[in-house]
Amino acid sequence: MSKNDMMRTSALAIIPLGGLEQIGMNITAFEYEDSIIIVDCGLAFPEDDMLGIDLVIPDVTYLKDNIKKVKGFIITHGHEDHIGSLPYVLKDINVPIYATRLTMGIIENKLKEHDLLDSTRRKVVTFGQSINLGQFRIEFIKTNHSIVDAAALAIYSPAGIVVHTGDFKVDYTPVFGDSIDLQRFAEIGKKGVLALMCDSTNAEREGFTPSEKTVGRNLDALFEDHDNTRIIIATFASNVDRVQQIINSAHKFGRKVVIEGRSMVNIIETARNLKCLDVPENTLIDLDRLKDYPDEKTVIITTGSQGESMAALSRMAGGNHKKIRIGANDTVIFSSHPIPGNEKAVTNVINELLIKGADVIFQDVHVSGHACQEEIKLIYSLVKPKYAIPVHGEFKHLKAQAKLAMQLGIPKENIFILRSGDVLEIDEHKAEVTGSVHAGDILVDGLGVGDVGNVVLRDRQRLSEDGIIIVTIGINKPERVILCGPEIVSRGFVYVKESDELMDEAREIVLEAMEDCLDRGVKDIVKMRNAIRDSLGGYVWKKTQRRPMIMPIIMEV
Amino acid sequence: MSKNDMMRTSALAIIPLGGLEQIGMNITAFEYEDSIIIVDCGLAFPEDDMLGIDLVIPDVTYLKDNIKKVKGFIITHGHEDHIGSLPYVLKDINVPIYATRLTMGIIENKLKEHDLLDSTRRKVVTFGQSINLGQFRIEFIKTNHSIVDAAALAIYSPAGIVVHTGDFKVDYTPVFGDSIDLQRFAEIGKKGVLALMCDSTNAEREGFTPSEKTVGRNLDALFEDHDNTRIIIATFASNVDRVQQIINSAHKFGRKVVIEGRSMVNIIETARNLKCLDVPENTLIDLDRLKDYPDEKTVIITTGSQGESMAALSRMAGGNHKKIRIGANDTVIFSSHPIPGNEKAVTNVINELLIKGADVIFQDVHVSGHACQEEIKLIYSLVKPKYAIPVHGEFKHLKAQAKLAMQLGIPKENIFILRSGDVLEIDEHKAEVTGSVHAGDILVDGLGVGDVGNVVLRDRQRLSEDGIIIVTIGINKPERVILCGPEIVSRGFVYVKESDELMDEAREIVLEAMEDCLDRGVKDIVKMRNAIRDSLGGYVWKKTQRRPMIMPIIMEV
Repeated sequence: MSKNDMMRTSALAIIPLGGLEQIGMNITAFEYEDSIIIVDCGLAFPEDDMLGIDLVIPDVTYLKDNIKKVKGFIITHGHEDHIGSLPYVLKDINVPIYATRLTMGIIENKLKEHDLLDSTRRKVVTFGQSINLGQFRIEFIKTNHSIVDAAALAIYSPAGIVVHTGDFKVDYTPVFGDSIDLQRFAEIGKKGVLALMCDSTNAEREGFTPSEKTVGRNLDALFEDHDNTRIIIATFASNVDRVQQIINSAHKFGRKVVIEGRSMVNIIETARNLKCLDVPENTLIDLDRLKDYPDEKTVIITTGSQGESMAALSRMAGGNHKKIRIGANDTVIFSSHPIPGNEKAVTNVINELLIKGADVIFQDVHVSGHACQEEIKLIYSLVKPKYAIPVHGEFKHLKAQAKLAMQLGIPKENIFILRSGDVLEIDEHKAEVTGSVHAGDILVDGLGVGDVGNVVLRDRQRLSEDGIIIVTIGINKPERVILCGPEIVSRGFVYVKESDELMDEAREIVLEAMEDCLDRGVKDIVKMRNAIRDSLGGYVWKKTQRRPMIMPIIMEV
Repeated sequence: MSKNDMMRTSALAIIPLGGLEQIGMNITAFEYEDSIIIVDCGLAFPEDDMLGIDLVIPDVTYLKDNIKKVKGFIITHGHEDHIGSLPYVLKDINVPIYATRLTMGIIENKLKEHDLLDSTRRKVVTFGQSINLGQFRIEFIKTNHSIVDAAALAIYSPAGIVVHTGDFKVDYTPVFGDSIDLQRFAEIGKKGVLALMCDSTNAEREGFTPSEKTVGRNLDALFEDHDNTRIIIATFASNVDRVQQIINSAHKFGRKVVIEGRSMVNIIETARNLKCLDVPENTLIDLDRLKDYPDEKTVIITTGSQGESMAALSRMAGGNHKKIRIGANDTVIFSSHPIPGNEKAVTNVINELLIKGADVIFQDVHVSGHACQEEIKLIYSLVKPKYAIPVHGEFKHLKAQAKLAMQLGIPKENIFILRSGDVLEIDEHKAEVTGSVHAGDILVDGLGVGDVGNVVLRDRQRLSEDGIIIVTIGINKPERVILCGPEIVSRGFVYVKESDELMDEAREIVLEAMEDCLDRGVKDIVKMRNAIRDSLGGYVWKKTQRRPMIMPIIMEV
């Protein structure tokens, strides 16, 4: 690190710390001499092979080791993959948070849940405003996204300006507030921008992402077509603009609105308090009052658009919802697309709803919140950066944006796809990955943070596939005799009764293995365990072609 | 059943036995008086919550109970979801198999593996040929699909004619053999068809599925564009036409071809032997000879297009393939679309390939093997059935075809979406679901067929989420004393050393619970176990908010 520290006196260092090749967890450190700022602090949801894991958060050892330099968190918007790790990371890195109004509102909900509100310094920033943190000045620029109050950042450092788009799209006709401040991107571009860090999510898609308003028009048409049924609409809890448009359509067609699902209720309340959502009088009703209105006069806005098994819509589809029964008089609209990996779960919910007789609509009722190729090209053309650092997306998305940047004339050697922990040192003259710092994933399971590692995950994988066989035996070692057992029980293996032939033979085999050990004068318990594991494992494989975990427990009585 | 048996003397009964709401497993019984024929005998791949399960096969109790009536299996084509359960079902239902040439070739490979070839009667049928089985006559009609030699069936019974399309598309310019025999569909339609059972897979998609030949043209273009790299193409092992086109392009551009992946090698060999695949001399080479040719003169055709973790392409992407290393001089083409549920796995493989420097292409190199809406309408219009029974697809696909059938003038009450086990009795005058027979899923895990049920799956789920804590204790019950233990070990819970505070406290708590039992004179081992489970479970939840399985083992010494 000493070499890096030397070099960094004259250059800006950009260090992504997100782990997982930056899928999901957005957190990037910007370092210049004695100052570090952190842009975003997101969490990731576990991959399929992370059995039993609730969340994944970034390893911020590097920030802990340099805590004296760290000036603050700059948050671009209120989505989980940008704010979700704050409650965990703040415990070690207790520096102020800077964010726009709704973003801060959502962060504060989260801090309350973790009892961190009082101990965390926070400052709400408005668009156009700049904040000074050590060697950095950070300006918040208005953008559009699938959540209100999303910001891009202009990060001014002695080495030059870095523009970070956050998650964005270009919406010329947004539902709430202003369109993205393209003029300001141009103005800053005119000054000369060192590097652009631009959202890559939709970099594989041609054209322009349609305006959020197009969804409103389609919703109106659907309300008109389905004027004789109840309407249930599932969308992302945080998409306040979408909820606004659903409420608008409901109001226009004289329907009452119920909000269902805890996260939806929370965010809607926050958005209303901050005046980011405009609900006409007497439109919202409590779930309990639903029965007082005819079906065709109600709309339920619900969580569960991703098929999440515990969400309200999944409970309705499965017939497990306490207060809502799905039937032939329901039109269910998915105002969302499945996030990659959720396709099957969403399809299962759709099939369940159809089987219950509901009409299900899942086309043309959603637009993305991320920029497609033409929008990305627009931002590059306004900002005209010297270096391009594609961010936010899987490797294939980053690669697709790199291709676009090349088409726009940025030389290949000026484009950087960074991995977690990479230290990119950058100034007017040069940009280079000069080293790497410790970075990685920390798994959160229940209250435990980081106490589940690869060994535990491998065990869970094995247990999930073939279960476990537990062998208990009591011995008197000095006298070389078996006092009790072997007792054999299994879980998750196959359904066998203790009297089954398989279990009888298994006991015989364990007995033989143990007697052999005792006869040979083996004293080491580990060796005895291995003897049991080997002989029983071989027998079980031969009989069943399965490899359950075998746990021999030898008690010395 | 007696009522049903009475009624069935004059009507044809159609009974799907596929389980899983017919997703995946295709098997349908047709019964008329003393005769039953079985159309297809497929398997399904396990759903996400079927932990450790390899395959799912249908419960054929109904066929076993009526074995004297069963005349034979009629197989439409050689895909796993239509033939995969044969080796399991044949053990109980040993009746002859009727299928076209390549279909039978693939079935025979399977029977060899299970050592069933000699004991199974088989008859290869040609298109246009009919076979007589009891009260039925079955005619095989040429169709197109993503596997060669796919057939539709005209099933003639005293109650009328049923047309079953199998899996099909309309390809006017097929790669191998003839186009679908639309004239024959029309001719039979003209005679008067009682019911049409038509493939619903793409019933939600508008328009026509493009010809397989369009893929060949795109492959040629890709070979031309990437003339300076090695080309690796992943596709379905059974898509012989696709392999043919890849070989054609390779030959045209002077490249040698390696076939990689066991299932691909098997099917290609079978197809060549049956002259369904035409390979020019000196085109195929062994994997070991790959190194003798420059990259730009080779093509590797491989399995793994669905991101299956053990398939050849995934091993290449993960750097685990014994003989193929991926690098910047590779162009990898996915000639396939992800099957629903596999999206994430495919994306992970793509990202790994890109990170290794390969160019990855996954657009415009695949067409579906299933009919879209216009083709479905065409078949309905040629066959003009009285009743419509959409088959092959999830509920939403069946429902989509039902809507199409209504648009074509079939009355709603003449359209039947059947569930597994439903008995649809049908004749000129009437069609009605009159009852149901036993049907369901049997889970195959290793060598075990049906020995893993819901209890075992629930245990595996629990084990996979939070692991297991095993508590062992030796007691002398009459004297009410603890002789040894408690010993506590965990697997898949959290990574703790035995000396950890958590484990120390856990031992204390178990000890207290046991001593309390002994003091109170509790003699029932089950009650002791419950006391340990309750007290330790409560403690662990409080400390960690996890619910590992707790297994108390009390040994009486």
